[in-house]
Amino acid sequence: MSYLPSVQKLIDEISKFPGIGPKSAQRIAYFILKSDEKFVFELSESLLEVKRKVRFCETCFDLSEDVICRTCTDPRRMNQTICVVEEPKDVIAMEKTNEFQGRYHVLGGVLSPLDSVGPEDLHLKELLKRIDKESITEVVVCTNPNLEGETTALYIQRLLTPLGVKVSRLASGLPVGADLDYADEQTLTRAFTGRRLME
Amino acid sequence: MSYLPSVQKLIDEISKFPGIGPKSAQRIAYFILKSDEKFVFELSESLLEVKRKVRFCETCFDLSEDVICRTCTDPRRMNQTICVVEEPKDVIAMEKTNEFQGRYHVLGGVLSPLDSVGPEDLHLKELLKRIDKESITEVVVCTNPNLEGETTALYIQRLLTPLGVKVSRLASGLPVGADLDYADEQTLTRAFTGRRLME
Repeated sequence: MSYLPSVQKLIDEISKFPGIGPKSAQRIAYFILKSDEKFVFELSESLLEVKRKVRFCETCFDLSEDVICRTCTDPRRMNQTICVVEEPKDVIAMEKTNEFQGRYHVLGGVLSPLDSVGPEDLHLKELLKRIDKESITEVVVCTNPNLEGETTALYIQRLLTPLGVKVSRLASGLPVGADLDYADEQTLTRAFTGRRLME
Repeated sequence: MSYLPSVQKLIDEISKFPGIGPKSAQRIAYFILKSDEKFVFELSESLLEVKRKVRFCETCFDLSEDVICRTCTDPRRMNQTICVVEEPKDVIAMEKTNEFQGRYHVLGGVLSPLDSVGPEDLHLKELLKRIDKESITEVVVCTNPNLEGETTALYIQRLLTPLGVKVSRLASGLPVGADLDYADEQTLTRAFTGRRLME
């Protein structure tokens, strides 16, 4: 005895979601079965709508409902500076700080030999084209401060420095409000070596 | 700046899934955005199909594509004995053991005052009706061996014993292949108090 075929199919499909194992998929499928029809119809429709409406901007590869996204077409944004991030969600995180006024470029991932993601799998060719076409002078690499993110940042730095582009990286150190005592050694080491003179 | 409305809507809906927080919902939404159209269409269709085809059996409340499920209509199953479980997935777990030949009854949850689930929220009224109608003599309560499951089992025992029904409970103890050293105290206590004479 096993699941009804239609239920098993749904469980199999949900299992493909990132971070969802067979047990969680099963729980979600039951949740769907117990939910009212309206919710399931809306969810089904949302899936189709997102797929129909949302694409990746052809310039920066952020999510967009048009061929070119709102940030890329915004005349109030500063030109010549590009912030490079891993994923569209990182654009939103950066925008919340109100610190950056330039343009974005979404890589669509990070270099990760273990997951067989190489430079050709990221939007690096397109970044090089923009450097030239948009006369970019500074690139701020905002990949995550982990092994893959650092490797990718280094790769980009080596790629762009010969072209005369200033490449910078987000500072690494203790998060605001953190407790020294609870910081891991790597973070504390970075905070120490990156210490700044108080003026 | 925030997500495109269609993406935000999908994230909000996915956040309602059990065990899925906003961050996981975001990750799943990106996964959907990156997936090929075929997968998303099939997923959207599966959701509707499950909702259209699958219902709860009117006798035992297991999942079914008919008004009465396959187990309830199977003439080879023994009558007079009912196995009470929390959820449809528990029926599948029990069936895999090939130990039980009787009928099932799915409660659709467990008593849980903290989640405001009371007796009236479970299929207990329907169980009482079946006891009478199907001349049930034994009920095996197979709720989970945790606080809610035990409470529910006790409730059912008190409900059915006065009716002359034999109520039993799954044995609690060390799982097969376990290491005594790694067993938690409650499990070891149960295994000890439930010790059986070797004959």
